[in-house]
Amino acid sequence: MYKPAIKTELAEKIRQSVKDGMIGQIEFTEELVRKPSTRGQEHTAQDFIFKELAARGYAMDRWAIDVASIEKHPGFSPVTVPYDNAINVVGSHRPREEKGRSLILNGHVDVVPTGPVDMWDRPPFEPYIKDDWLYGRGSGDMKAGLAANIFALDALKRLGYQPAATVHVQSVTEEECTGNGALSALVRGYSADAVIIPEPEDEGLVRASVGVIWFRVHVKGHPVHVATAGSGENAIEAAIFLIGKLKDYEKARNALKVNHPHFADYEKPINVNVGKIEGGDWASSVPAWCSFDVRTALYPGEDARQAAQQIEDFINEAATGHSFLVSNPPDVEFNGFMAEGFELEAGSDAEKTLTLAHTTATASELTTFGSMAYLDARVFVLYDNTPCLVYGPISKSIHGYNEAVSIESIERITTAIALYIAMWCGLESI
Amino acid sequence: MYKPAIKTELAEKIRQSVKDGMIGQIEFTEELVRKPSTRGQEHTAQDFIFKELAARGYAMDRWAIDVASIEKHPGFSPVTVPYDNAINVVGSHRPREEKGRSLILNGHVDVVPTGPVDMWDRPPFEPYIKDDWLYGRGSGDMKAGLAANIFALDALKRLGYQPAATVHVQSVTEEECTGNGALSALVRGYSADAVIIPEPEDEGLVRASVGVIWFRVHVKGHPVHVATAGSGENAIEAAIFLIGKLKDYEKARNALKVNHPHFADYEKPINVNVGKIEGGDWASSVPAWCSFDVRTALYPGEDARQAAQQIEDFINEAATGHSFLVSNPPDVEFNGFMAEGFELEAGSDAEKTLTLAHTTATASELTTFGSMAYLDARVFVLYDNTPCLVYGPISKSIHGYNEAVSIESIERITTAIALYIAMWCGLESI
Repeated sequence: MYKPAIKTELAEKIRQSVKDGMIGQIEFTEELVRKPSTRGQEHTAQDFIFKELAARGYAMDRWAIDVASIEKHPGFSPVTVPYDNAINVVGSHRPREEKGRSLILNGHVDVVPTGPVDMWDRPPFEPYIKDDWLYGRGSGDMKAGLAANIFALDALKRLGYQPAATVHVQSVTEEECTGNGALSALVRGYSADAVIIPEPEDEGLVRASVGVIWFRVHVKGHPVHVATAGSGENAIEAAIFLIGKLKDYEKARNALKVNHPHFADYEKPINVNVGKIEGGDWASSVPAWCSFDVRTALYPGEDARQAAQQIEDFINEAATGHSFLVSNPPDVEFNGFMAEGFELEAGSDAEKTLTLAHTTATASELTTFGSMAYLDARVFVLYDNTPCLVYGPISKSIHGYNEAVSIESIERITTAIALYIAMWCGLESI
Repeated sequence: MYKPAIKTELAEKIRQSVKDGMIGQIEFTEELVRKPSTRGQEHTAQDFIFKELAARGYAMDRWAIDVASIEKHPGFSPVTVPYDNAINVVGSHRPREEKGRSLILNGHVDVVPTGPVDMWDRPPFEPYIKDDWLYGRGSGDMKAGLAANIFALDALKRLGYQPAATVHVQSVTEEECTGNGALSALVRGYSADAVIIPEPEDEGLVRASVGVIWFRVHVKGHPVHVATAGSGENAIEAAIFLIGKLKDYEKARNALKVNHPHFADYEKPINVNVGKIEGGDWASSVPAWCSFDVRTALYPGEDARQAAQQIEDFINEAATGHSFLVSNPPDVEFNGFMAEGFELEAGSDAEKTLTLAHTTATASELTTFGSMAYLDARVFVLYDNTPCLVYGPISKSIHGYNEAVSIESIERITTAIALYIAMWCGLESI
């Protein structure tokens, strides 16, 4: 039976080395937050990561996601934007002698949009520290985690050590919209005995996670001057009708939670979110078009393509109950995530190792929970049969205004990752 | 008692002269449709009008609307766009001897947005003729009318006549959004004994017309990751709640129609139209903001500023019934029309003259009706105590796709306007 262990004295040295690196690590994280890596604009942040990993001596690889190479993969999500600047970066360490178990340290560099900047206390891409919090879009989700991966290795290096197994440090794109970045890295051949993704999980371990589907509903009709508007000819009102119907869909989906033990205790594990809407051109014209974007979720084990078909059927069926839509049927477009959920099998060696590393780093138990957000971990678990540990720092206001990450938590997480590397990969002197 | 009249023989000559000019008039109208004079882009169409009026020998005037000169006027509507290219053009005719009654021939050059171009059978600014219809955005509303004003005068000129009174040919902007174009012309000093506006009124005369108010409701809140969304924190859903409440407002407004004889017979004289909506940035973020644009209407005699206050009060009151809005009160912005309705007093000399001109031109009675759309006529009627005759050609799909105007109707209307000029202004030989 596998029993992870390192000597107490080494653990203490690692903890101290992480602490010694914290000033540089926070500066690095701030620099990363300064790169506004929203979708389609991830490349400047990736250039920074590339330069930093190369300077540390890792063997470097980078590529733009190639849709042709992944579009037949069951984990592929449809994409409606060009991938010219959707650059993945990997820095690889190979030991002199491959003694331990190999590891992927993964993180995503893309961040979600800021929303109206005037709602932020300070500009979202100008990081600042207040009390224990580092603020900025992407600070928690998940640039602190990306930095933690790199600085955990740095902490070992300061002690004269490097992993005694292959370690790939991956910085991927497209985690917030398709998951095609992590998928592209898998298809490129990257694989290991375990994966860590330091998403902002409040120092817990994700036991299971939902999948996510995005879709856009387009309503189009024949507008008229507002003076001659009959009832029910308004595309915005027709869209609102469909949005109302989605409440029934959401209710039905959440009723199924009883079959999914990791989600049964949540009030609403399946959030059907209308995240964006756009319609009409002119106050005095009856609007002829309206589109809205929806995010919904899948329980682990549910088939994404089947679920997509059900969504399309639901919208089409709902449309038959509306005088305008019945003669102007809406169009359902799948324009992002078509990604399944996963479950991390309990009792793996990888999890045992993290449990020990976490307890050593934090003097507290490792809790596990079901995550209601999409995670790239599904790529490793579903399509490479590899344990993937999603475990990262305490954060607040993820996807909201004034996003922030706890600096003390960053230190604890970085220590846990460094300990994990020492236990899982083993160490060799540099 | 005033009795408009001209000799039958002259009337027949005028009818024939209009017919003789029709090929050129339709070409002129098509050229005008080719200028995509949506809001903020009216200037190229106005350059064309300026050149054409100048070539005919009118005394020319043009100016950009100056907000400072009109913003204290009771007929002013708030404006949120620059007016650099909101150019008004006036060509003035002055007779050798001022014998008849003076006249303003007014029309607006601005057109409403096209909406999605792929919903049109052909590109909206590439006019074409099919059967009796001239198609294109603005063909009916109201470039055919603008051209009719100019070609009615041309028809008289071909017979060797010009009006025996001052005539101002006005081409104004901002009719579809504020009415500030016509107001600016009034404030500049233009005035006459009567006004004709050949809006597409199906050869009828507008007896009364609603006023219009535009407003935009802004909802803003604090977004979160969709995974942690509670209920009622979604700005789009909060906006939808307010849109639903507007149905009550609309019902209450329409119940008042019994007090307004020109509107009592319409099912819904006050159309409260949600014409535009925008909200959220990302399917997987709970939307933090949503704005929607509304057009509502006023019965003649209602005070616009009082009505605006009532709208603001209504929205604020509605917000108290919603868990999200009560702590994130919506903002109501008045961003366009704040324009009152009007009634054309029956029995004026101007109307008698049009009745005769119309009957002579069309061999049919002139019907009058209440208009449920905003009209610039309110500027002349309310603020210059001048009879304004809104009377123009048969059209279809105004503000919609495949807008079109009847060519035969253009000829009838142009004949009626030419006859009107002959009767109202009198004629002198050139």
